Amino acid sequence: MAAGGWGWARAVRGLLLDVSGVLYDSGADGGVPIAGSAEAVRRIKASGLKLQLCTNETQATREDFVRKLRAMGFDISVAEVTAPAPAACRLLRERGLRPHLLVHDDLVPEFAEVDKTNPNCVVLGDAAENFTYANLNEAFRLLIGMEKPVLISLGKGRYYKETDGLKLDVGAYMKALEYACDVQAEVVGKPAKRFFESALAELGVPPEQAIMIGDDIVNDVGGAQQCGMRALQVRTGKYRPSDENHPEVKPDAYVNNLAEAVDIILQQL
Amino acid sequence: MAAGGWGWARAVRGLLLDVSGVLYDSGADGGVPIAGSAEAVRRIKASGLKLQLCTNETQATREDFVRKLRAMGFDISVAEVTAPAPAACRLLRERGLRPHLLVHDDLVPEFAEVDKTNPNCVVLGDAAENFTYANLNEAFRLLIGMEKPVLISLGKGRYYKETDGLKLDVGAYMKALEYACDVQAEVVGKPAKRFFESALAELGVPPEQAIMIGDDIVNDVGGAQQCGMRALQVRTGKYRPSDENHPEVKPDAYVNNLAEAVDIILQQL
Repeated sequence: MAAGGWGWARAVRGLLLDVSGVLYDSGADGGVPIAGSAEAVRRIKASGLKLQLCTNETQATREDFVRKLRAMGFDISVAEVTAPAPAACRLLRERGLRPHLLVHDDLVPEFAEVDKTNPNCVVLGDAAENFTYANLNEAFRLLIGMEKPVLISLGKGRYYKETDGLKLDVGAYMKALEYACDVQAEVVGKPAKRFFESALAELGVPPEQAIMIGDDIVNDVGGAQQCGMRALQVRTGKYRPSDENHPEVKPDAYVNNLAEAVDIILQQL
Repeated sequence: MAAGGWGWARAVRGLLLDVSGVLYDSGADGGVPIAGSAEAVRRIKASGLKLQLCTNETQATREDFVRKLRAMGFDISVAEVTAPAPAACRLLRERGLRPHLLVHDDLVPEFAEVDKTNPNCVVLGDAAENFTYANLNEAFRLLIGMEKPVLISLGKGRYYKETDGLKLDVGAYMKALEYACDVQAEVVGKPAKRFFESALAELGVPPEQAIMIGDDIVNDVGGAQQCGMRALQVRTGKYRPSDENHPEVKPDAYVNNLAEAVDIILQQL
Protein backbone atom coordinates (compact mmCIF):
# COMPACT_ATOMS: atom_id res chain seq x y z
CA MET A 1 0.00 0.00 0.00
CA ALA A 2 3.02 2.29 -0.46
CA ALA A 3 2.05 5.50 -2.27
CA GLY A 4 4.31 4.42 -5.12
CA GLY A 5 1.79 1.68 -5.97
CA TRP A 6 -1.00 4.18 -6.46
CA GLY A 7 0.18 6.08 -9.51
CA TRP A 8 -2.91 5.04 -11.47
CA ALA A 9 -5.06 6.95 -8.95
CA ARG A 10 -3.80 10.27 -10.35
CA ALA A 11 -6.31 10.00 -13.22
CA VAL A 12 -9.29 9.66 -10.89
CA ARG A 13 -12.20 12.08 -11.29
CA GLY A 14 -14.95 10.25 -9.46
CA LEU A 15 -15.65 7.63 -6.81
CA LEU A 16 -18.37 5.01 -6.59
CA LEU A 17 -18.99 3.92 -3.00
CA ASP A 18 -20.78 0.87 -1.71
CA VAL A 19 -22.83 1.83 1.35
CA SER A 20 -23.49 -0.95 3.88
CA GLY A 21 -20.14 -2.06 5.28
CA VAL A 22 -18.38 1.04 3.89
CA LEU A 23 -20.34 4.01 5.28
CA TYR A 24 -22.09 2.19 8.13
CA ASP A 25 -22.61 -1.20 9.73
CA SER A 26 -26.11 -2.65 9.97
CA GLY A 27 -27.45 -2.75 13.49
CA ALA A 28 -30.57 -3.16 15.57
CA ASP A 29 -31.24 0.59 15.46
CA GLY A 30 -30.80 0.69 11.68
CA GLY A 31 -27.06 1.19 11.56
CA VAL A 32 -23.91 2.67 13.10
CA PRO A 33 -21.57 4.88 11.04
CA ILE A 34 -18.08 3.46 10.46
CA ALA A 35 -15.52 5.76 12.13
CA GLY A 36 -14.24 8.46 9.77
CA SER A 37 -16.67 7.68 6.92
CA ALA A 38 -18.92 10.76 7.25
CA GLU A 39 -15.83 12.98 7.33
CA ALA A 40 -14.42 11.07 4.33
CA VAL A 41 -17.57 11.81 2.30
CA ARG A 42 -17.22 15.53 3.15
CA ARG A 43 -13.54 15.49 2.09
CA ILE A 44 -14.37 13.81 -1.25
CA LYS A 45 -16.90 16.53 -2.01
CA ALA A 46 -14.55 19.33 -0.90
CA SER A 47 -11.82 17.94 -3.19
CA GLY A 48 -13.92 18.38 -6.32
CA LEU A 49 -14.05 14.63 -7.01
CA LYS A 50 -17.46 13.40 -8.08
CA LEU A 51 -19.22 10.92 -5.86
CA GLN A 52 -22.05 8.41 -6.33
CA LEU A 53 -23.29 5.71 -3.95
CA CYS A 54 -23.80 2.37 -5.65
CA THR A 55 -25.85 0.03 -3.48
CA ASN A 56 -27.84 -3.20 -3.74
CA GLU A 57 -30.13 -2.01 -0.93
CA THR A 58 -33.71 -3.13 -1.63
CA GLN A 59 -35.36 -2.94 1.78
CA ALA A 60 -36.29 0.75 1.47
CA THR A 61 -36.99 3.43 -1.12
CA ARG A 62 -34.06 5.67 -2.00
CA GLU A 63 -35.81 8.52 -0.17
CA ASP A 64 -36.00 6.55 3.09
CA PHE A 65 -32.48 5.23 2.60
CA VAL A 66 -31.07 8.75 2.17
CA ARG A 67 -33.04 9.96 5.20
CA LYS A 68 -31.34 7.24 7.25
CA LEU A 69 -27.89 8.14 5.92
CA ARG A 70 -28.41 11.85 6.61
CA ALA A 71 -29.52 11.03 10.17
CA MET A 72 -26.17 9.24 10.59
CA GLY A 73 -24.32 12.40 9.46
CA PHE A 74 -23.71 11.64 5.76
CA ASP A 75 -24.09 14.57 3.36
CA ILE A 76 -25.91 12.65 0.62
CA SER A 77 -28.83 13.48 -1.68
CA VAL A 78 -31.24 11.10 -3.43
CA ALA A 79 -29.67 11.85 -6.83
CA GLU A 80 -26.35 10.58 -5.49
CA VAL A 81 -27.72 7.04 -4.95
CA THR A 82 -27.80 4.34 -7.64
CA ALA A 83 -29.99 1.48 -6.43
CA PRO A 84 -31.56 -1.58 -8.09
CA ALA A 85 -35.25 -0.66 -7.87
CA PRO A 86 -35.11 2.48 -10.05
CA ALA A 87 -32.88 0.60 -12.51
CA ALA A 88 -35.44 -2.23 -12.60
CA CYS A 89 -38.24 0.28 -13.24
CA ARG A 90 -36.35 1.60 -16.28
CA LEU A 91 -35.85 -1.94 -17.57
CA LEU A 92 -39.54 -2.79 -17.06
CA ARG A 93 -40.63 0.32 -18.98
CA GLU A 94 -38.18 -0.30 -21.83
CA ARG A 95 -39.43 -3.84 -22.34
CA GLY A 96 -43.13 -3.33 -21.60
CA LEU A 97 -42.96 -5.71 -18.63
CA ARG A 98 -45.64 -5.73 -15.92
CA PRO A 99 -44.15 -7.15 -12.72
CA HIS A 100 -45.48 -9.29 -9.95
CA LEU A 101 -43.46 -8.01 -6.97
CA LEU A 102 -41.93 -10.24 -4.31
CA VAL A 103 -40.09 -7.51 -2.43
CA HIS A 104 -39.91 -5.83 0.97
CA ASP A 105 -43.05 -3.85 1.84
CA ASP A 106 -40.95 -0.69 2.18
CA LEU A 107 -39.69 -1.00 -1.40
CA VAL A 108 -43.13 -1.16 -3.03
CA PRO A 109 -43.48 2.65 -3.45
CA GLU A 110 -40.50 2.61 -5.88
CA PHE A 111 -42.80 0.72 -8.29
CA ALA A 112 -45.80 3.05 -7.86
CA GLU A 113 -45.69 4.26 -11.46
CA VAL A 114 -45.31 0.78 -12.98
CA ASP A 115 -48.30 -1.11 -14.42
CA LYS A 116 -48.64 -4.27 -12.34
CA THR A 117 -51.88 -5.64 -13.79
CA ASN A 118 -51.82 -9.07 -15.45
CA PRO A 119 -48.12 -9.68 -14.66
CA ASN A 120 -45.74 -10.99 -17.34
CA CYS A 121 -42.63 -11.15 -15.15
CA VAL A 122 -41.59 -11.53 -11.50
CA VAL A 123 -39.37 -9.00 -9.73
CA LEU A 124 -37.57 -10.45 -6.72
CA GLY A 125 -35.92 -8.30 -4.04
CA ASP A 126 -34.72 -8.94 -0.52
CA ALA A 127 -38.26 -9.49 0.70
CA ALA A 128 -37.17 -10.60 4.20
CA GLU A 129 -40.31 -11.52 6.18
CA ASN A 130 -42.25 -11.54 2.91
CA PHE A 131 -40.30 -14.66 1.88
CA THR A 132 -43.14 -16.90 3.04
CA TYR A 133 -44.00 -20.36 1.68
CA ALA A 134 -47.24 -18.94 0.23
CA ASN A 135 -45.52 -15.96 -1.44
CA LEU A 136 -42.79 -18.12 -2.95
CA ASN A 137 -45.35 -20.58 -4.33
CA GLU A 138 -47.32 -17.67 -5.78
CA ALA A 139 -44.28 -16.22 -7.56
CA PHE A 140 -43.34 -19.71 -8.78
CA ARG A 141 -46.83 -20.42 -10.19
CA LEU A 142 -46.85 -17.13 -12.09
CA LEU A 143 -43.44 -17.89 -13.59
CA ILE A 144 -44.13 -21.50 -14.52
CA GLY A 145 -47.39 -20.39 -16.12
CA MET A 146 -45.61 -17.99 -18.51
CA GLU A 147 -44.74 -19.17 -21.98
CA LYS A 148 -41.24 -17.78 -21.43
CA PRO A 149 -40.71 -17.04 -17.72
CA VAL A 150 -38.97 -13.72 -16.97
CA LEU A 151 -37.42 -13.44 -13.51
CA ILE A 152 -35.72 -10.17 -12.58
CA SER A 153 -33.66 -10.29 -9.39
CA LEU A 154 -32.56 -7.16 -7.51
CA GLY A 155 -29.07 -8.45 -6.72
CA LYS A 156 -27.83 -11.98 -6.16
CA GLY A 157 -26.22 -11.81 -2.71
CA ARG A 158 -25.92 -15.04 -0.76
CA TYR A 159 -26.47 -13.69 2.75
CA TYR A 160 -25.89 -10.68 4.97
CA LYS A 161 -25.38 -10.01 8.63
CA GLU A 162 -27.78 -8.29 10.99
CA THR A 163 -27.36 -7.88 14.71
CA ASP A 164 -29.62 -10.88 15.36
CA GLY A 165 -27.64 -13.09 13.01
CA LEU A 166 -27.04 -14.00 9.37
CA LYS A 167 -29.97 -13.82 6.93
CA LEU A 168 -30.43 -15.45 3.54
CA ASP A 169 -30.21 -12.77 0.86
CA VAL A 170 -32.20 -12.46 -2.37
CA GLY A 171 -29.73 -14.63 -4.32
CA ALA A 172 -30.72 -17.77 -2.42
CA TYR A 173 -34.40 -17.30 -3.29
CA MET A 174 -33.43 -16.43 -6.85
CA LYS A 175 -31.67 -19.80 -7.13
CA ALA A 176 -34.74 -21.62 -5.77
CA LEU A 177 -36.99 -20.08 -8.44
CA GLU A 178 -34.39 -20.51 -11.18
CA TYR A 179 -34.17 -24.24 -10.44
CA ALA A 180 -37.91 -24.79 -10.08
CA CYS A 181 -38.69 -23.00 -13.37
CA ASP A 182 -35.52 -24.00 -15.27
CA VAL A 183 -34.88 -20.33 -16.06
CA GLN A 184 -32.00 -17.91 -15.57
CA ALA A 185 -32.74 -14.70 -13.68
CA GLU A 186 -31.72 -11.32 -15.03
CA VAL A 187 -29.84 -9.58 -12.23
CA VAL A 188 -30.34 -5.84 -11.75
CA GLY A 189 -27.81 -4.49 -9.25
CA LYS A 190 -24.17 -5.24 -8.56
CA PRO A 191 -22.30 -7.10 -10.06
CA ALA A 192 -24.27 -6.62 -13.31
CA LYS A 193 -22.27 -4.60 -15.83
CA ARG A 194 -25.29 -2.61 -16.91
CA PHE A 195 -25.89 -1.50 -13.32
CA PHE A 196 -22.34 -0.21 -12.91
CA GLU A 197 -22.69 1.56 -16.26
CA SER A 198 -25.82 3.32 -14.95
CA ALA A 199 -23.92 4.40 -11.85
CA LEU A 200 -21.03 5.69 -13.98
CA ALA A 201 -23.47 7.61 -16.19
CA GLU A 202 -24.93 9.26 -13.09
CA LEU A 203 -21.40 9.92 -11.82
CA GLY A 204 -20.59 11.52 -15.19
CA VAL A 205 -17.12 9.95 -15.38
CA PRO A 206 -15.77 7.20 -17.70
CA PRO A 207 -14.73 3.91 -16.09
CA GLU A 208 -10.99 4.51 -16.44
CA GLN A 209 -11.31 7.69 -14.36
CA ALA A 210 -13.48 6.13 -11.64
CA ILE A 211 -12.68 4.01 -8.58
CA MET A 212 -15.14 1.68 -6.85
CA ILE A 213 -14.73 1.25 -3.10
CA GLY A 214 -16.56 -1.65 -1.48
CA ASP A 215 -16.45 -4.43 1.09
CA ASP A 216 -17.72 -7.24 -1.20
CA ILE A 217 -14.92 -8.90 -3.14
CA VAL A 218 -17.21 -10.32 -5.83
CA ASN A 219 -20.13 -7.91 -6.20
CA ASP A 220 -18.23 -4.63 -5.61
CA VAL A 221 -14.63 -5.27 -6.62
CA GLY A 222 -15.07 -7.96 -9.28
CA GLY A 223 -18.13 -6.29 -10.81
CA ALA A 224 -16.46 -2.87 -11.09
CA GLN A 225 -13.26 -4.31 -12.57
CA GLN A 226 -15.34 -6.10 -15.23
CA CYS A 227 -16.50 -2.62 -16.27
CA GLY A 228 -12.97 -1.32 -16.65
CA MET A 229 -12.83 0.50 -13.32
CA ARG A 230 -10.20 0.26 -10.62
CA ALA A 231 -11.58 -1.13 -7.36
CA LEU A 232 -10.50 -1.09 -3.72
CA GLN A 233 -11.64 -3.45 -0.99
CA VAL A 234 -12.08 -1.98 2.50
CA ARG A 235 -11.36 -4.16 5.53
CA THR A 236 -14.72 -3.25 7.10
CA GLY A 237 -18.26 -4.67 6.75
CA LYS A 238 -18.41 -8.17 5.31
CA TYR A 239 -14.67 -8.22 4.50
CA ARG A 240 -12.99 -11.43 5.67
CA PRO A 241 -9.23 -12.10 5.66
CA SER A 242 -9.85 -15.06 3.33
CA ASP A 243 -11.02 -12.55 0.68
CA GLU A 244 -7.33 -11.69 0.16
CA ASN A 245 -6.86 -15.18 -1.32
CA HIS A 246 -9.91 -15.05 -3.58
CA PRO A 247 -9.33 -17.40 -6.54
CA GLU A 248 -10.72 -15.01 -9.17
CA VAL A 249 -10.82 -11.42 -7.95
CA LYS A 250 -7.88 -9.26 -6.92
CA PRO A 251 -8.58 -5.66 -5.88
CA ASP A 252 -6.27 -2.92 -7.14
CA ALA A 253 -5.51 -2.27 -3.46
CA TYR A 254 -6.73 -3.00 0.06
CA VAL A 255 -7.45 -0.23 2.53
CA ASN A 256 -8.39 -0.48 6.19
CA ASN A 257 -11.47 1.68 5.72
CA LEU A 258 -12.99 4.44 3.60
CA ALA A 259 -11.15 7.19 5.48
CA GLU A 260 -7.79 5.63 4.61
CA ALA A 261 -8.82 5.18 0.96
CA VAL A 262 -9.72 8.87 0.72
CA ASP A 263 -6.47 9.91 2.43
CA ILE A 264 -4.39 8.04 -0.11
CA ILE A 265 -6.42 9.01 -3.18
CA LEU A 266 -6.37 12.71 -2.29
CA GLN A 267 -2.59 12.54 -1.84
CA GLN A 268 -2.27 11.49 -5.49
CA LEU A 269 -4.15 14.46 -6.94
CA MET B 1 -45.30 -50.96 -27.96
CA ALA B 2 -45.81 -54.17 -29.99
CA ALA B 3 -45.18 -57.24 -27.84
CA GLY B 4 -42.21 -58.03 -30.04
CA GLY B 5 -40.37 -55.05 -28.53
CA TRP B 6 -40.65 -56.43 -25.03
CA GLY B 7 -38.48 -59.53 -25.25
CA TRP B 8 -36.16 -58.17 -22.54
CA ALA B 9 -39.07 -58.28 -20.07
CA ARG B 10 -38.92 -62.11 -20.04
CA ALA B 11 -36.03 -61.96 -17.55
CA VAL B 12 -37.99 -59.86 -15.04
CA ARG B 13 -38.31 -61.12 -11.47
CA GLY B 14 -39.31 -57.97 -9.65
CA LEU B 15 -40.91 -54.55 -10.12
CA LEU B 16 -40.13 -51.24 -8.45
CA LEU B 17 -43.11 -48.89 -8.54
CA ASP B 18 -43.23 -45.17 -7.99
CA VAL B 19 -46.35 -44.30 -5.99
CA SER B 20 -47.77 -40.79 -6.50
CA GLY B 21 -48.84 -40.52 -10.15
CA VAL B 22 -48.65 -44.32 -10.64
CA LEU B 23 -50.88 -45.77 -7.91
CA TYR B 24 -52.87 -42.63 -7.13
CA ASP B 25 -53.22 -38.95 -7.92
CA SER B 26 -52.84 -36.38 -5.15
CA GLY B 27 -56.08 -34.69 -4.25
CA ALA B 28 -57.79 -32.56 -1.63
CA ASP B 29 -58.90 -35.66 0.30
CA GLY B 30 -55.39 -37.14 0.23
CA GLY B 31 -55.56 -38.92 -3.09
CA VAL B 32 -57.64 -40.79 -5.65
CA PRO B 33 -56.55 -44.23 -6.95
CA ILE B 34 -55.66 -44.37 -10.64
CA ALA B 35 -58.10 -46.72 -12.38
CA GLY B 36 -56.83 -50.31 -12.49
CA SER B 37 -53.79 -49.73 -10.25
CA ALA B 38 -55.05 -51.56 -7.14
CA GLU B 39 -56.00 -54.55 -9.29
CA ALA B 40 -52.59 -54.35 -11.02
CA VAL B 41 -50.81 -54.59 -7.64
CA ARG B 42 -52.84 -57.69 -6.81
CA ARG B 43 -51.99 -59.27 -10.16
CA ILE B 44 -48.26 -58.60 -9.68
CA LYS B 45 -48.36 -60.39 -6.32
CA ALA B 46 -50.44 -63.29 -7.68
CA SER B 47 -47.93 -63.76 -10.52
CA GLY B 48 -45.04 -64.42 -8.16
CA LEU B 49 -43.13 -61.31 -9.25
CA LYS B 50 -41.59 -59.41 -6.36
CA LEU B 51 -42.78 -55.89 -5.73
CA GLN B 52 -41.36 -52.87 -3.89
CA LEU B 53 -42.66 -49.30 -3.81
CA CYS B 54 -39.90 -46.74 -4.32
CA THR B 55 -41.09 -43.26 -3.37
CA ASN B 56 -39.67 -39.83 -2.57
CA GLU B 57 -42.62 -39.16 -0.25
CA THR B 58 -41.44 -37.18 2.80
CA GLN B 59 -44.65 -35.65 4.14
CA ALA B 60 -45.57 -38.68 6.28
CA THR B 61 -44.03 -41.65 8.03
CA ARG B 62 -44.07 -44.92 6.10
CA GLU B 63 -46.69 -46.22 8.54
CA ASP B 64 -49.08 -43.34 7.80
CA PHE B 65 -48.30 -43.55 4.10
CA VAL B 66 -49.14 -47.27 3.99
CA ARG B 67 -52.32 -46.66 5.99
CA LYS B 68 -53.40 -44.18 3.32
CA LEU B 69 -52.57 -46.61 0.50
CA ARG B 70 -54.46 -49.46 2.17
CA ALA B 71 -57.50 -47.19 2.63
CA MET B 72 -57.39 -46.63 -1.13
CA GLY B 73 -57.47 -50.39 -1.71
CA PHE B 74 -53.76 -51.16 -2.24
CA ASP B 75 -52.49 -54.41 -0.68
CA ILE B 76 -49.19 -53.00 0.59
CA SER B 77 -47.20 -53.47 3.81
CA VAL B 78 -44.66 -51.12 5.42
CA ALA B 79 -41.78 -53.46 4.48
CA GLU B 80 -42.74 -53.03 0.82
CA VAL B 81 -42.01 -49.27 0.87
CA THR B 82 -38.56 -47.76 0.26
CA ALA B 83 -38.64 -44.08 1.25
CA PRO B 84 -35.98 -41.41 1.83
CA ALA B 85 -36.35 -40.89 5.58
CA PRO B 86 -35.37 -44.42 6.68
CA ALA B 87 -32.50 -44.34 4.15
CA ALA B 88 -31.37 -41.01 5.62
CA CYS B 89 -31.49 -42.49 9.14
CA ARG B 90 -29.16 -45.30 8.05
CA LEU B 91 -26.77 -42.77 6.50
CA LEU B 92 -26.81 -40.60 9.64
CA ARG B 93 -26.01 -43.60 11.85
CA GLU B 94 -23.22 -44.84 9.58
CA ARG B 95 -21.49 -41.47 9.60
CA GLY B 96 -22.21 -40.40 13.18
CA LEU B 97 -24.21 -37.40 12.00
CA ARG B 98 -26.64 -35.56 14.29
CA PRO B 99 -29.23 -33.76 12.16
CA HIS B 100 -31.06 -30.51 12.47
CA LEU B 101 -34.38 -31.34 10.78
CA LEU B 102 -36.16 -29.02 8.38
CA VAL B 103 -38.95 -31.41 7.40
CA HIS B 104 -42.71 -31.82 7.52
CA ASP B 105 -44.10 -32.22 11.06
CA ASP B 106 -45.57 -35.59 10.12
CA LEU B 107 -42.15 -36.94 9.11
CA VAL B 108 -40.42 -36.16 12.42
CA PRO B 109 -41.31 -39.53 14.05
CA GLU B 110 -39.11 -41.31 11.45
CA PHE B 111 -36.13 -39.68 13.16
CA ALA B 112 -37.21 -40.55 16.72
CA GLU B 113 -34.23 -42.85 17.30
CA VAL B 114 -31.63 -40.43 15.93
CA ASP B 115 -29.52 -38.22 18.21
CA LYS B 116 -30.39 -34.64 17.30
CA THR B 117 -28.42 -32.82 20.00
CA ASN B 118 -25.71 -30.37 18.94
CA PRO B 119 -26.38 -30.84 15.20
CA ASN B 120 -23.52 -31.38 12.75
CA CYS B 121 -25.65 -31.58 9.59
CA VAL B 122 -28.99 -30.38 8.21
CA VAL B 123 -31.61 -32.78 6.82
CA LEU B 124 -34.01 -31.10 4.40
CA GLY B 125 -37.32 -32.66 3.35
CA ASP B 126 -40.46 -31.35 1.72
CA ALA B 127 -41.28 -29.25 4.77
CA ALA B 128 -44.25 -27.50 3.09
CA GLU B 129 -45.67 -24.95 5.57
CA ASN B 130 -42.50 -25.36 7.66
CA PHE B 131 -40.55 -23.62 4.87
CA THR B 132 -40.77 -20.29 6.69
CA TYR B 133 -38.29 -17.42 6.46
CA ALA B 134 -37.29 -18.05 10.08
CA ASN B 135 -36.79 -21.81 9.62
CA LEU B 136 -34.75 -21.34 6.43
CA ASN B 137 -32.52 -18.76 8.13
CA GLU B 138 -32.05 -21.12 11.08
CA ALA B 139 -31.00 -24.04 8.84
CA PHE B 140 -28.71 -21.70 6.91
CA ARG B 141 -27.01 -20.36 10.05
CA LEU B 142 -26.33 -23.86 11.32
CA LEU B 143 -24.80 -24.87 7.99
CA ILE B 144 -22.67 -21.76 7.51
CA GLY B 145 -21.40 -22.14 11.07
CA MET B 146 -20.04 -25.65 10.39
CA GLU B 147 -16.41 -26.07 9.45
CA LYS B 148 -17.54 -28.32 6.58
CA PRO B 149 -21.30 -27.90 6.04
CA VAL B 150 -23.21 -31.16 5.45
CA LEU B 151 -26.61 -30.78 3.81
CA ILE B 152 -28.68 -33.94 3.23
CA SER B 153 -31.72 -33.47 1.01
CA LEU B 154 -34.58 -35.98 0.85
CA GLY B 155 -35.03 -35.77 -2.91
CA LYS B 156 -34.41 -32.89 -5.29
CA GLY B 157 -37.77 -32.45 -7.02
CA ARG B 158 -38.53 -29.05 -8.54
CA TYR B 159 -42.26 -28.90 -7.86
CA TYR B 160 -45.38 -31.00 -7.59
CA LYS B 161 -49.07 -30.53 -8.14
CA GLU B 162 -51.78 -30.46 -5.51
CA THR B 163 -55.43 -29.72 -6.05
CA ASP B 164 -54.94 -26.10 -4.99
CA GLY B 165 -52.05 -25.62 -7.40
CA LEU B 166 -48.35 -26.22 -7.96
CA LYS B 167 -46.01 -26.20 -4.97
CA LEU B 168 -42.25 -25.73 -4.80
CA ASP B 169 -40.64 -29.05 -3.89
CA VAL B 170 -37.63 -29.72 -1.66
CA GLY B 171 -35.15 -29.31 -4.55
CA ALA B 172 -35.85 -25.58 -4.81
CA TYR B 173 -35.03 -25.02 -1.13
CA MET B 174 -32.02 -27.31 -1.47
CA LYS B 175 -30.69 -25.03 -4.22
CA ALA B 176 -31.22 -21.94 -2.05
CA LEU B 177 -29.16 -23.42 0.79
CA GLU B 178 -26.53 -24.84 -1.58
CA TYR B 179 -25.97 -21.39 -3.08
CA ALA B 180 -25.97 -19.52 0.22
CA CYS B 181 -23.45 -21.92 1.80
CA ASP B 182 -21.46 -22.74 -1.35
CA VAL B 183 -21.99 -26.44 -0.67
CA GLN B 184 -23.37 -29.40 -2.61
CA ALA B 185 -26.21 -31.32 -0.99
CA GLU B 186 -26.14 -35.10 -0.71
CA VAL B 187 -29.43 -36.33 -2.12
CA VAL B 188 -31.14 -39.29 -0.45
CA GLY B 189 -34.05 -40.50 -2.57
CA LYS B 190 -34.59 -40.88 -6.29
CA PRO B 191 -32.62 -40.38 -8.56
CA ALA B 192 -29.65 -41.20 -6.27
CA LYS B 193 -28.04 -44.49 -7.26
CA ARG B 194 -27.58 -45.57 -3.68
CA PHE B 195 -31.30 -45.15 -3.03
CA PHE B 196 -32.26 -47.37 -5.97
CA GLU B 197 -29.69 -49.91 -4.76
CA SER B 198 -31.41 -49.96 -1.34
CA ALA B 199 -34.76 -50.53 -3.02
CA LEU B 200 -33.29 -53.36 -5.13
CA ALA B 201 -31.78 -54.94 -2.01
CA GLU B 202 -35.19 -54.86 -0.35
CA LEU B 203 -36.75 -56.23 -3.53
CA GLY B 204 -34.14 -59.01 -3.49
CA VAL B 205 -33.56 -58.89 -7.24
CA PRO B 206 -30.51 -57.72 -9.23
CA PRO B 207 -30.96 -54.65 -11.46
CA GLU B 208 -30.95 -56.58 -14.74
CA GLN B 209 -33.98 -58.56 -13.52
CA ALA B 210 -35.93 -55.57 -12.24
CA ILE B 211 -38.14 -52.98 -13.96
CA MET B 212 -38.88 -49.52 -12.58
CA ILE B 213 -42.29 -48.04 -13.41
CA GLY B 214 -42.75 -44.32 -12.80
CA ASP B 215 -44.24 -41.08 -14.06
CA ASP B 216 -41.10 -38.91 -13.61
CA ILE B 217 -38.83 -39.06 -16.64
CA VAL B 218 -35.73 -37.91 -14.76
CA ASN B 219 -36.08 -39.14 -11.19
CA ASP B 220 -37.80 -42.48 -11.89
CA VAL B 221 -36.78 -43.49 -15.40
CA GLY B 222 -33.36 -41.86 -15.69
CA GLY B 223 -32.35 -42.77 -12.13
CA ALA B 224 -33.30 -46.44 -12.52
CA GLN B 225 -31.56 -46.77 -15.88
CA GLN B 226 -28.37 -45.35 -14.32
CA CYS B 227 -28.51 -48.34 -11.97
CA GLY B 228 -28.73 -50.83 -14.82
CA MET B 229 -32.48 -51.39 -14.61
CA ARG B 230 -35.04 -51.20 -17.39
CA ALA B 231 -37.59 -48.43 -16.81
CA LEU B 232 -41.08 -47.64 -18.11
CA GLN B 233 -42.81 -44.28 -18.06
CA VAL B 234 -46.56 -44.27 -17.45
CA ARG B 235 -48.70 -41.61 -19.11
CA THR B 236 -50.36 -40.73 -15.77
CA GLY B 237 -49.45 -38.39 -12.91
CA LYS B 238 -46.90 -35.72 -13.81
CA TYR B 239 -46.25 -37.23 -17.28
CA ARG B 240 -46.35 -34.59 -20.02
CA PRO B 241 -46.24 -35.30 -23.78
CA SER B 242 -43.03 -33.25 -23.99
CA ASP B 243 -41.34 -35.92 -21.84
CA GLU B 244 -41.27 -38.11 -24.96
CA ASN B 245 -38.74 -35.68 -26.46
CA HIS B 246 -36.53 -35.50 -23.38
CA PRO B 247 -32.98 -34.62 -24.47
CA GLU B 248 -31.25 -37.10 -22.15
CA VAL B 249 -33.60 -39.82 -20.94
CA LYS B 250 -35.43 -42.40 -23.08
CA PRO B 251 -37.58 -44.98 -21.28
CA ASP B 252 -37.39 -48.61 -22.42
CA ALA B 253 -41.10 -48.23 -23.21
CA TYR B 254 -44.13 -46.01 -22.61
CA VAL B 255 -47.37 -47.40 -21.21
CA ASN B 256 -50.68 -45.65 -20.71
CA ASN B 257 -50.86 -46.65 -17.05
CA LEU B 258 -49.72 -49.25 -14.53
CA ALA B 259 -52.49 -51.69 -15.50
CA GLU B 260 -51.28 -51.74 -19.09
CA ALA B 261 -47.66 -52.20 -17.99
CA VAL B 262 -48.62 -55.23 -15.87
CA ASP B 263 -50.72 -56.69 -18.71
CA ILE B 264 -47.77 -56.59 -21.09
CA ILE B 265 -45.13 -57.75 -18.60
CA LEU B 266 -47.22 -60.74 -17.48
CA GLN B 267 -47.73 -61.75 -21.13
CA GLN B 268 -43.94 -62.13 -21.48
CA LEU B 269 -43.53 -64.58 -18.58
